[in-house]
Amino acid sequence: MTIDLHSETRPCGVDAASAAARRVIDALVGSGDMTDADMADIADRLNAVADDLEETAPSRNDRLVNMWVGDGNTRHDPVTGPENPIAPPLEYVGVDSHTIEATTTLGLPYQGPPSSVHGGVSALLLDHTLGVANGWAGTSGMTAELTLRYHRLTPLFEPLTITARQISVDGRKIRTEGAIRTGGEDCVTAEGLFIAKHPPRPR
Amino acid sequence: MTIDLHSETRPCGVDAASAAARRVIDALVGSGDMTDADMADIADRLNAVADDLEETAPSRNDRLVNMWVGDGNTRHDPVTGPENPIAPPLEYVGVDSHTIEATTTLGLPYQGPPSSVHGGVSALLLDHTLGVANGWAGTSGMTAELTLRYHRLTPLFEPLTITARQISVDGRKIRTEGAIRTGGEDCVTAEGLFIAKHPPRPR
Repeated sequence: MTIDLHSETRPCGVDAASAAARRVIDALVGSGDMTDADMADIADRLNAVADDLEETAPSRNDRLVNMWVGDGNTRHDPVTGPENPIAPPLEYVGVDSHTIEATTTLGLPYQGPPSSVHGGVSALLLDHTLGVANGWAGTSGMTAELTLRYHRLTPLFEPLTITARQISVDGRKIRTEGAIRTGGEDCVTAEGLFIAKHPPRPR
Repeated sequence: MTIDLHSETRPCGVDAASAAARRVIDALVGSGDMTDADMADIADRLNAVADDLEETAPSRNDRLVNMWVGDGNTRHDPVTGPENPIAPPLEYVGVDSHTIEATTTLGLPYQGPPSSVHGGVSALLLDHTLGVANGWAGTSGMTAELTLRYHRLTPLFEPLTITARQISVDGRKIRTEGAIRTGGEDCVTAEGLFIAKHPPRPR
């Protein structure tokens, strides 16, 4: 099978700039006010980068159409997109015909409780992973209902395995499960009901 | 009442640098490969900013302790933190003694379906908002279970109202509800069960 579970990160272009932006995000949250860095200068330099990017950016409508051509959302989504500095980004592998997984380690920008992943960030990663598992299994759709159970704190700075498996397809109803685990223990589990429909791509 | 629902964004320091980083994130996702910008140069400039920040950053352990002093997570969390470029950031107001709300407009970095907010981003915003509503109502805790129902697509580029209300406290069990609405219609609703306990702050 050659379904793309995620887009490969390229070593150049917007992917390299987004990887650098991730370093900036991590360093800003890691610094806060505990730094001698000249934050006014840092802000000026970042605003200058934004100015230069905005000056040459396509119109929003052109970009909205273009970003759904080809790979679709996998280049830019907030979980796996190499173009999106918010994305960790996750990189999935197929485990069996209905199951995928990714391994990642999250840092301070994703913190909820002390030294732990924000419960809502876990929800974000799981919602996306369940959706991609549906595509991998052959029938995907839109999230209708998602239930998350939090079993123990999910640690920052330690490798997490994020997995999802499509359980059943009944007419347009798709049921999918997933988990975030560390050291073999469930931290968060998820059950999703998806409906097999897709909104139109922008033209 | 003078409970802080979120930290005020300051016009200088790390908050200004994080605001500039948000502009960079938005412009990168808004550009993708549809730009004549010199992305190698952009990457170099962002990496130089990251280098300068990392050089003067505190140790991870020192930062982990410090970031939980005083305001606690509201300065840096991934939903409301003015120090965190991933955060939109939301700014809550109290509606009544058990209810809070925020209004925000989300752009391309938060996209799931075409021109719509990613379902997992909605989950992130709602999980956090339910938690803050619990603090506002006087009894907060950790998310044990969260159920999200998706009623219609949540639009990008339009004002969204994100609201949450603590429904009941029964021993250590807290029940809280919330919604993301636009134009008076529910896009996503959430029900949460929270347990009134708090992990220790790092020392």
